[in-house]
Amino acid sequence: MEHAPKAIDVTNDVEMRTFNFFTMGIDGHPLGLHLDMAIPTILNNADEEQQKDWLPKAANREFIATYAQTEMGHGTNLKKLETTATYDPKTQEFVLNSPTITSTKWWPGNLGKSSNYAVVMAQLYTQGKCHGAHPFFVQLRDLNTHKPLKGITVGDIGPKFGMNTVDNGFLQFDHVRTPRRSMFMKHAKVLPDGRYVPPVHDKLNYSAMVFIRAAIVSGMAYHLLVTSTIAVRYSAIRRQGEITPGAGEVKVLDYQTQQHRIFPQLARGLAFRLSGQYIMKLYTQTMDDIRNGDISAVPDLHALSCGLKAVTTHHAALGLEQCRMACGGHGYSQASGFPLHYSVAVGACTYEGENMVMLLQTARHLMKIAKAIRAGQSPKSNKIVDYLFHKGPPKCLIDQAYDTNYRNVLESFEHLARRQTLEVYDKLVQLQQQGRNYEQAWNDCAVELCKATRAHVRTFLARTFVEEIDKISDLSIKSVLQDLLQLYLYYEVTECATGLLEDGFMTGQQHKYAKKKIYEALEKIRPNAVSIVDSFDFQDRELHSVLGRRDGNVYENLLKWAQSSPLNKTDVLPFHHKYLGKMMEEARQRSKI
Amino acid sequence: MEHAPKAIDVTNDVEMRTFNFFTMGIDGHPLGLHLDMAIPTILNNADEEQQKDWLPKAANREFIATYAQTEMGHGTNLKKLETTATYDPKTQEFVLNSPTITSTKWWPGNLGKSSNYAVVMAQLYTQGKCHGAHPFFVQLRDLNTHKPLKGITVGDIGPKFGMNTVDNGFLQFDHVRTPRRSMFMKHAKVLPDGRYVPPVHDKLNYSAMVFIRAAIVSGMAYHLLVTSTIAVRYSAIRRQGEITPGAGEVKVLDYQTQQHRIFPQLARGLAFRLSGQYIMKLYTQTMDDIRNGDISAVPDLHALSCGLKAVTTHHAALGLEQCRMACGGHGYSQASGFPLHYSVAVGACTYEGENMVMLLQTARHLMKIAKAIRAGQSPKSNKIVDYLFHKGPPKCLIDQAYDTNYRNVLESFEHLARRQTLEVYDKLVQLQQQGRNYEQAWNDCAVELCKATRAHVRTFLARTFVEEIDKISDLSIKSVLQDLLQLYLYYEVTECATGLLEDGFMTGQQHKYAKKKIYEALEKIRPNAVSIVDSFDFQDRELHSVLGRRDGNVYENLLKWAQSSPLNKTDVLPFHHKYLGKMMEEARQRSKI
Repeated sequence: MEHAPKAIDVTNDVEMRTFNFFTMGIDGHPLGLHLDMAIPTILNNADEEQQKDWLPKAANREFIATYAQTEMGHGTNLKKLETTATYDPKTQEFVLNSPTITSTKWWPGNLGKSSNYAVVMAQLYTQGKCHGAHPFFVQLRDLNTHKPLKGITVGDIGPKFGMNTVDNGFLQFDHVRTPRRSMFMKHAKVLPDGRYVPPVHDKLNYSAMVFIRAAIVSGMAYHLLVTSTIAVRYSAIRRQGEITPGAGEVKVLDYQTQQHRIFPQLARGLAFRLSGQYIMKLYTQTMDDIRNGDISAVPDLHALSCGLKAVTTHHAALGLEQCRMACGGHGYSQASGFPLHYSVAVGACTYEGENMVMLLQTARHLMKIAKAIRAGQSPKSNKIVDYLFHKGPPKCLIDQAYDTNYRNVLESFEHLARRQTLEVYDKLVQLQQQGRNYEQAWNDCAVELCKATRAHVRTFLARTFVEEIDKISDLSIKSVLQDLLQLYLYYEVTECATGLLEDGFMTGQQHKYAKKKIYEALEKIRPNAVSIVDSFDFQDRELHSVLGRRDGNVYENLLKWAQSSPLNKTDVLPFHHKYLGKMMEEARQRSKI
Repeated sequence: MEHAPKAIDVTNDVEMRTFNFFTMGIDGHPLGLHLDMAIPTILNNADEEQQKDWLPKAANREFIATYAQTEMGHGTNLKKLETTATYDPKTQEFVLNSPTITSTKWWPGNLGKSSNYAVVMAQLYTQGKCHGAHPFFVQLRDLNTHKPLKGITVGDIGPKFGMNTVDNGFLQFDHVRTPRRSMFMKHAKVLPDGRYVPPVHDKLNYSAMVFIRAAIVSGMAYHLLVTSTIAVRYSAIRRQGEITPGAGEVKVLDYQTQQHRIFPQLARGLAFRLSGQYIMKLYTQTMDDIRNGDISAVPDLHALSCGLKAVTTHHAALGLEQCRMACGGHGYSQASGFPLHYSVAVGACTYEGENMVMLLQTARHLMKIAKAIRAGQSPKSNKIVDYLFHKGPPKCLIDQAYDTNYRNVLESFEHLARRQTLEVYDKLVQLQQQGRNYEQAWNDCAVELCKATRAHVRTFLARTFVEEIDKISDLSIKSVLQDLLQLYLYYEVTECATGLLEDGFMTGQQHKYAKKKIYEALEKIRPNAVSIVDSFDFQDRELHSVLGRRDGNVYENLLKWAQSSPLNKTDVLPFHHKYLGKMMEEARQRSKI
């Protein structure tokens, strides 16, 4: 931290993040939540006076704060958080309490050891009534001794799959008093006498979530592009088997199976990146709209962001593992970087909203749209969902001559999303007519509802990819990216082929055509693959990978990396003669007798 | 080790393995390769005199040996191993040498620090000619000092994704001399004058691989059943959301999406277990046949074992992660046990034959069969592949009344395997007619070839599952397992639905029917799910999981587990005031100025 000002402009958020990233790696650091969650909460939820007090101190790092929401017993379902903040008008304080073991705050990053403050989400009670979860800014540890304050139990939750440089923590309150003004009061308020003043509207909570999930989409793009880079580079070094007799062993990247493993991850990485950028722009625009009193776009955008988060994190996790396995045994070594990237990236499948819950969240929104469609309503000229209202072609046209904008492929994705959405809506209605209550009917349809969301998200990702590539003016760059686009689109067609085939929309011949286009795209990408990943310009210290080194000197550095392992400090481990050596020696003595 | 004789019969291999397993966990120990690879190699490849010398010492653990085959530059392709063993008739010794960095032996378990002997695979040169890779029994370290012998460089390859209690190692030879009789001489020999005597036949090498891969199938079953157990138990504890208003939060296991994530893993675990047992029996029988001079079954069995290894390891890896993610955020904690199980199990996707290579190995065999079929030959009454020769029904019958043995579903799998195999064969022939050489044509078809293998393996797994359940006589057990069978079969139908739909064999209605049967099976399994996993009778110390505890006391033990983490030994980390504390203190001083 103290070296940062020498290297960068520390007031520039992007530069600061990049500096942190390069110096502290990808698995987290003690100020991560302070920068990513606590400060934004102060900005979004503290009133002017609170901001004036807290923000400069936070920016100067006079304290380290984190964001404590998730509890041991409840993560995604905020309504059921058990931590309470009960207002006592006599002392004008809130009393924070953890009434059960399951109410223990659990998982917040940097909570265990680093932070001395936290944004704490707790059920607000005042004048005998609960008003739901609200954020409070609470001191946890003494500023000088760093010891937990009276009534506070705090610690680390122990080792995890990854991100072990982050002290995810637990936190319990035993009737801890905190001033009235520690409640964040930009939106809701509690007056000194205990009266509760509700927020004007709660749509702003949505937008914060959209921001986080848009950031996750871009994060998944990053992980996929990094791991594709490693896999492509290593596959251009590794040789195995002959294709042309006598010509020597070929680079494994020449194998169709290897291309078919790696290149779709590259294409998906690009698709996620473009959609991540797009949705971040949409977020900024929607925030402007909200300030101008127009909140109409928020529900569609919020719903999309849930589904996008679930789909991109899931596909990134699968894709990272494909890249790892494409590197054979060496991919299993930490020298490859894959174990690090996977264990960090895969966390996103369960944090910030568990994926299955996310898919169903989007589906709730899709069912509202289906209801409007069945009621004969017109679309609201919203680009994200309007296609659901339109009628597409009755038959798939993917093998027909198409314009460069792949309308025929996009229409196929739209067809599937529309059909799946309406079919499951009709089923929901039917089950309720048969006597199931709404939630029961919902549960009976849950797997099919998730499929509707996935089809909707696929449509969005594909449309965005097509539109963004279309905007590129440099024709040589465009041509290379169009190969990746071709791969992406037809790969997605085969991924959802069952849905396209089962109602007779697509024919078997058309599915064959899609596969042919995939194999064709793989061949086109092959000669450019190394240049494509080199163009991302990742630094070696970002990749954390001997296999993915830019200079290609894999094998000698694999040996060097191994030799520097702590186990190799001595030829013979210091405790060898105490255990294994002794066991063998005694056995030899016995056999001599 | 020294406690083993007090608890078990150490001469009983199964008891010994179980003892190791419970005392040393699942991520390996220093004698793993000695027991699993080195001793079996002595048994299978040493001649009588060599066995007499080496076997008692190995059994008594007078030395620890490992099996060093894989090199840095070549794993799966044995022909290209670079380590050489050149016979010198003058001294009657072999000279072992590592001519390049890529020839460094790399990955062998326990090679780094524990072993003082190794079975080394090296290219045998004698009288100026190379005879391919052969095994040699080589001393690596001094028996007393444990230091590497002259000319030998050996060490640990560093940390990995998992199995970090195993010292996977590297090994280089600089013209190391070893006696002629250190070559394993049961099959091939080199006479004192340097003449090479080839083995009678090489089919026995196949059979060892079949054994290992059969063991892997059972291992994958174990991992899937363990992780399903954790996920089912935790899902019966965890509550979230309401389905019936006012009835309180439901167990997450009541959600269709949760069942649809976990139960198929349970069903696959069972399928893999039954196929693992079946193929192990087949292996024993085939070994008997070989001893009686009948090697006819070996190629089919060997080919099947490659494909089975690839499919079961891949599905296990996916399934383990589904079980983990079904446990939400807590699944990411090492307290869940999932990170351990996943990182150990997923190693099998790349070791003992990289999966893509394995799929293509099976495909080579399928292409031979396709050739025989196209040439009008008759089947050889071999249960594994004969269905490929037969004509099945022209249309799918899965929605017709069926007998309990699911002939109609199995016929669907058979249809797909047969069609995919013959289609890709015809394509291979066509490409060669168009002027591609065989390996080029093969590469152009490689993704489709893998699909043929998967369809063939699916047929085998499903048929074995059906047949084994049919044999059960206890009707109440049978009934529960039939629910899992129903789920398994229709889940597999939907997994391969694209293939069944694209040629018009299956209709969209039939696909809907299969999905209905899945949802029906989930409902039937739900009330028995906890009893099913309890019946596996795993001990808590096998599960390594706070979430999967048999007594269900998850939350209080999660807290205890966390509190026992080393980071919680002190409330304030010893170095806090040196870094973060100092940073905050200095910032506070500055702001006071």
